[in-house]
Amino acid sequence: MAVRVALFVSGSYVHIHRKHNMAKSNVRDKLVAAGLELFHTKGYNACGVSDITDAAEVPKGSFYNHFKSKELLALAVLDLYQSLLGLDALKDKSKPPVPRLRSLFKRYLTFQVKWQFARGCLLGNFGAELSSQSPLVRKALKNIFDRWRDAVAIVLQEAKERGDLAGRLDPQETARFLYNAWQGAVINSKVTRSQAPFDNFFAVVFDSLMKR
Amino acid sequence: MAVRVALFVSGSYVHIHRKHNMAKSNVRDKLVAAGLELFHTKGYNACGVSDITDAAEVPKGSFYNHFKSKELLALAVLDLYQSLLGLDALKDKSKPPVPRLRSLFKRYLTFQVKWQFARGCLLGNFGAELSSQSPLVRKALKNIFDRWRDAVAIVLQEAKERGDLAGRLDPQETARFLYNAWQGAVINSKVTRSQAPFDNFFAVVFDSLMKR
Repeated sequence: MAVRVALFVSGSYVHIHRKHNMAKSNVRDKLVAAGLELFHTKGYNACGVSDITDAAEVPKGSFYNHFKSKELLALAVLDLYQSLLGLDALKDKSKPPVPRLRSLFKRYLTFQVKWQFARGCLLGNFGAELSSQSPLVRKALKNIFDRWRDAVAIVLQEAKERGDLAGRLDPQETARFLYNAWQGAVINSKVTRSQAPFDNFFAVVFDSLMKR
Repeated sequence: MAVRVALFVSGSYVHIHRKHNMAKSNVRDKLVAAGLELFHTKGYNACGVSDITDAAEVPKGSFYNHFKSKELLALAVLDLYQSLLGLDALKDKSKPPVPRLRSLFKRYLTFQVKWQFARGCLLGNFGAELSSQSPLVRKALKNIFDRWRDAVAIVLQEAKERGDLAGRLDPQETARFLYNAWQGAVINSKVTRSQAPFDNFFAVVFDSLMKR
C-alpha cells in the first residue's frame, strides 16, 4: 500500500512515500524522524536506542524489527536529512548562476535560524563525531558531499563562463571550498549561538569570490 | 615543587609546568593527556570516566580528586590543546604577513597528516558535539576562537596594508572566515580520509584571496 507521511523534520516538512505495509512503515518512519531529531539536537553518542523509541512513542522492542543497529538508523536518518539539501533548485536556469547559488545558502541559513543556531548541520556533526567510529556513516557522508560538490560545480562552471567567478578559481575546487567554509560557519554559529558566521560567509563569498 | 612534564599530546610534545604537589600533579596531567587522546580520537560522549582512568593508568577513584566532572576535564583538555595553536609565531615580523599565515596553516596540516586525517581538530569536534550539551565548553571554544581570530586579523591587517589581500576583504571578517573554512576542511578530511580538502584550502585561500 502506498503511504504518504508528512514528518516534521527539524523544522521542515518532509514527505515520505513508502509502498509497503502501512503499520510497519509508520513505525519505521517514526523511528527515523525521532532519530533525526535526537541525533541532530543531542548527537549520536549522547542518545541510545531507548531514547529513540521513547521519542518515537513506539515499543522499545520494535526498533530491531526495522534496524539491525543504531548505526543503520543513522544511515536512514542521513537519507531523510538529504531531502533538505535542495540541489534540484540549482538546475533552474531562469536565474543567473551566482544568485541561484546564493539562494541555496539562504535556504540553509533559514534552517539554521529556525533551529536557533543550536543544532548545526547533521552532515558536519556526523562528520566530526562519527568519521572514525563508523565507516558506513563516513562513506554515506562522502557520497552526499560528492553529490553536493558536483551539483554546485556545474553552477560555478556557468558562473565562470559568464566571468562571475573571481580570479583563477576552479569550479570543482571552489565547490569543495564552499562546502567546507559553510560547514565551518555552521559549527561556529553553534559555538557563538549567532548568525554572524553566516553573515561573514555571505560577505566574503558573494562580495569577494563572486560577482553579484 | 615545580614539575616539568613532557606529555605526548596527539602527536606533539607539550611541556607542562606545575608548581604544586608532584604526585598529585602527575595524576592530573595523566588524566588530561588521556582525556585529550580519547576525546580527540573517539569523541566526548563515546568515552566514559573509567575509559579515561584506564588509559591514564590511574585508579578510577582518583578522577574525582582532580575533576568534579568529565565536563571540567574537557575544559582542562581544551586548555592543553590550545598549546598547539602556535599563535605566537604570527608575531614574527621577519617574515611577510601572508607567508607567516601560510606557515600557521602548514603547522596545522602537519598535525592532521600525523593523525592520518582521523582525529580532526578538537575545537571543531567539540563545537559540533558539545555546543548544545555544555555551555562551559561552548564558552571556552568561543574564547579560543576569539583569540585566534584577533591574532590572525592583526596579520591580515598587515597584509592589507601591503596590498596583499584580494578585493575589499576586511581583516577581521577574513580571519573569521579562514577559521571556519579551515574547520570545515578538517571535517571533510576526516570524512574523505585525505589531504585533498587542505590542498584545496591552500589553493583557494593563498592563490585567490591573497597574494603570495
